[in-house]
Amino acid sequence: MITRKIALILAGGRGTRLWPLSREFYPKQFAKTFDKSSTFQNALIRAVATTGDLSNVYVVTNKDYRFHVLGQAEEIGFKLSEENILTEPLKRNTAPAIYFGIKCAVPEGEDALVAILPADHVIPDLAKYEKVMETGLSIAKKGYLVTFGIKPKKPETGYGYIKTGEKICENAYKAERFIEKPDLERAERFLREGGYYWNSGMFAFRACVFEEEVKKHLPEVYDAFSSESWRENLDEVYEKLPDISVDYGVMEKSEKVAIVPADLEWSDIGSFDSLYELLKKDPDGNAVIGRCYLIDSRNNLVLGERLVALIGIENLMVLDSGDAILICPRGKGQEVRKLFNKLKENGEEEAIVHKTVYRPWGSYTVLEEGPGYKVKRVTVLPHKRLSLQMHYHRSEHWIVIKGMAKVTKGDEVFFLRPQESTFVPPGVVHRLENPGKIPLEVIEVQNGEYIEEDDIVRIEDDYKREQEP
Amino acid sequence: MITRKIALILAGGRGTRLWPLSREFYPKQFAKTFDKSSTFQNALIRAVATTGDLSNVYVVTNKDYRFHVLGQAEEIGFKLSEENILTEPLKRNTAPAIYFGIKCAVPEGEDALVAILPADHVIPDLAKYEKVMETGLSIAKKGYLVTFGIKPKKPETGYGYIKTGEKICENAYKAERFIEKPDLERAERFLREGGYYWNSGMFAFRACVFEEEVKKHLPEVYDAFSSESWRENLDEVYEKLPDISVDYGVMEKSEKVAIVPADLEWSDIGSFDSLYELLKKDPDGNAVIGRCYLIDSRNNLVLGERLVALIGIENLMVLDSGDAILICPRGKGQEVRKLFNKLKENGEEEAIVHKTVYRPWGSYTVLEEGPGYKVKRVTVLPHKRLSLQMHYHRSEHWIVIKGMAKVTKGDEVFFLRPQESTFVPPGVVHRLENPGKIPLEVIEVQNGEYIEEDDIVRIEDDYKREQEP
Repeated sequence: MITRKIALILAGGRGTRLWPLSREFYPKQFAKTFDKSSTFQNALIRAVATTGDLSNVYVVTNKDYRFHVLGQAEEIGFKLSEENILTEPLKRNTAPAIYFGIKCAVPEGEDALVAILPADHVIPDLAKYEKVMETGLSIAKKGYLVTFGIKPKKPETGYGYIKTGEKICENAYKAERFIEKPDLERAERFLREGGYYWNSGMFAFRACVFEEEVKKHLPEVYDAFSSESWRENLDEVYEKLPDISVDYGVMEKSEKVAIVPADLEWSDIGSFDSLYELLKKDPDGNAVIGRCYLIDSRNNLVLGERLVALIGIENLMVLDSGDAILICPRGKGQEVRKLFNKLKENGEEEAIVHKTVYRPWGSYTVLEEGPGYKVKRVTVLPHKRLSLQMHYHRSEHWIVIKGMAKVTKGDEVFFLRPQESTFVPPGVVHRLENPGKIPLEVIEVQNGEYIEEDDIVRIEDDYKREQEP
Repeated sequence: MITRKIALILAGGRGTRLWPLSREFYPKQFAKTFDKSSTFQNALIRAVATTGDLSNVYVVTNKDYRFHVLGQAEEIGFKLSEENILTEPLKRNTAPAIYFGIKCAVPEGEDALVAILPADHVIPDLAKYEKVMETGLSIAKKGYLVTFGIKPKKPETGYGYIKTGEKICENAYKAERFIEKPDLERAERFLREGGYYWNSGMFAFRACVFEEEVKKHLPEVYDAFSSESWRENLDEVYEKLPDISVDYGVMEKSEKVAIVPADLEWSDIGSFDSLYELLKKDPDGNAVIGRCYLIDSRNNLVLGERLVALIGIENLMVLDSGDAILICPRGKGQEVRKLFNKLKENGEEEAIVHKTVYRPWGSYTVLEEGPGYKVKRVTVLPHKRLSLQMHYHRSEHWIVIKGMAKVTKGDEVFFLRPQESTFVPPGVVHRLENPGKIPLEVIEVQNGEYIEEDDIVRIEDDYKREQEP
């Protein structure tokens, strides 16, 4: 019996093809480079519109992204409860992620109508989305695994396609077959022939129908979650799970797949090439975010944190994220993953974090680091506080530049306002807290023989962390 | 009568074709991007080798660069006296600059043997240079205007050429004619035919011979300096001077020009294209300074202050100076001037200064600027001090990270060592000084409603400045 309608947001991807905008610890779905809100935040808004109730929205994500999910939801006024954030211990792929989400969200013996929403989609028209999803869920109710097919606007080679088969009802067809990213020639043929749709990656189905199909087509995933103790042994469960997408593992094999054609403006920002497609262009075909001088330059994508100047450049993508720059011709966006893997292999910090590092209490930006010192701007969100902590090797100067700070230093507790400062010597237990209603901003100057982040002893922490600062 | 041998370094150029490495207030001849020492410092070493005595070395430069000249000379152990730095009030070109230099350095009625050394040359082999210059000066003694011709290694279109005429002696020819930057076809013909040399821009002559030729070919320059009071009215004198190069104004017209062929490795870093030629390449033809990842990329020039990654890029120049990036195909280096002028027209700060701004007492780097605050790293050179000053609108926190600071704050004078700090409220007279033997480094956090550099009242200044900080 269907007891609920739920939405499952898939927010565990790493977006390595969007480096340097995307980082291991801050992937593209949380970035706000191309819009005021992140694609995750927009997915959350769609999810709430779908279920009508935040308590029926679940987010499947990696454990490293838990605080991004919490923080970004809060930022747009949604207080997600801890139970609705389902964290995976390892990065697998969409089939395990969705199945894990359903196992967590739908109690044994119950059924639910489920909408699957990837966190990296751009869908500008919410009302159109709602209508399409409503249709999809009504078809799903009948026992279909519903995929949403976007009518192709051009012979795109970066997306998968689905071919429609026999008609089910006015707005739905059976799926005849799935085609992975085709070459240009095939993509052009699909467009000519008609009946082909882009596979959007959104789905709708009944939980028990999906479970049956997983049992049939992905028994290793089904079995991994069938022991009574899978919750307690999640790390082990995940280690055994295959890295397989829901398209490849379930949809392509199931007989129960339906297509609901979706007349939607839609993009998944899978690469910088699709970002270029998405952005507005100037009359010379340049898509620019940031301060940029273009001389004799056409059809470029430029994202600049700093001043970028192009002379006589065509069809290039220039991605500047403040601490790193990527330059690559348009059309080569798929190669960025290769570069990312190389950076990670070599242990380059720029693969892992941005200059700005997000924490459950806010964020910090390293302004400069040199022998024996580090300068940071620290932002503490309203009513949040860092852990009660101590460092063996470094002293810290705090100078408030915005907001109000509550400082614990040894036995003292006092307040600091802008232009006020304090000094915390090594070995002294301290805590920085924002008791106010606007973000607190502090310039922190660290001094010492050893100034790495791991020189930290946590005495008490709101976020139950031990190692990370 | 020749009483002295002097060297005149031309260090007033702006190097606008090397933006963003070169800035209005810190041009290429002072940059240390491509070597441990700047090209000005290397020119100074050559000048001292030529004259044997620092007191016979003169530097003609713009008034804005006076402290760069002083500071960079001191850095390599040369204490230039004030009289040897000849500052031009306006930017003209090489003909006025050389004539001004000679008028200052050679008293009326005396004669001198003069070597002219541009400050932006790269000449790796000092001994070879000395030999060539010795030959040049010996020819100059006979009354010739000596040019030094570099044997062309390839059909370079970025340099001027000189054609040799009849032989004067073993190592010198009369100059038959000067050719401005030729096109490729002509340059190739010059190479085939032989007898053509690159015009190096170095010269040697007797002061009175040069003066005669200026009188003959550039009477407006000659006349400008002929009044008794030209020293007192230098601003007016310069306003009337034409913007003309010594090659075009004197050398191409004079009958007294000789060429001394110079078997030298030589470059003038006139553009990024010539910088690419100069630098070492990897087996794929990439010239790289900085941290760079290259995937399927060939024949590029990359100068990165931060991490730069290239995928599938060929024949591109990527110049990253921390606060600005220029991207331009190889061969288009001459176009950078156009861009620079556009930046300046639009009042972009990146055209004028680097993130690091040089001052007579040292330098400062803006680490971050935001509403109501600014964070700087301030470096004070040994035994130097900032002016005794006061700000109306901002407070300053100083935290020492290296060296020893002597602080004047109201009536107090005290010392600060690393990890120590002080706070200067608005309206309090203060001074920062380095009494020690190693550079002092301080993190300065400014707070206030108005934090521009012009909120400064100078009470006393070692460098007699009034406006600049």
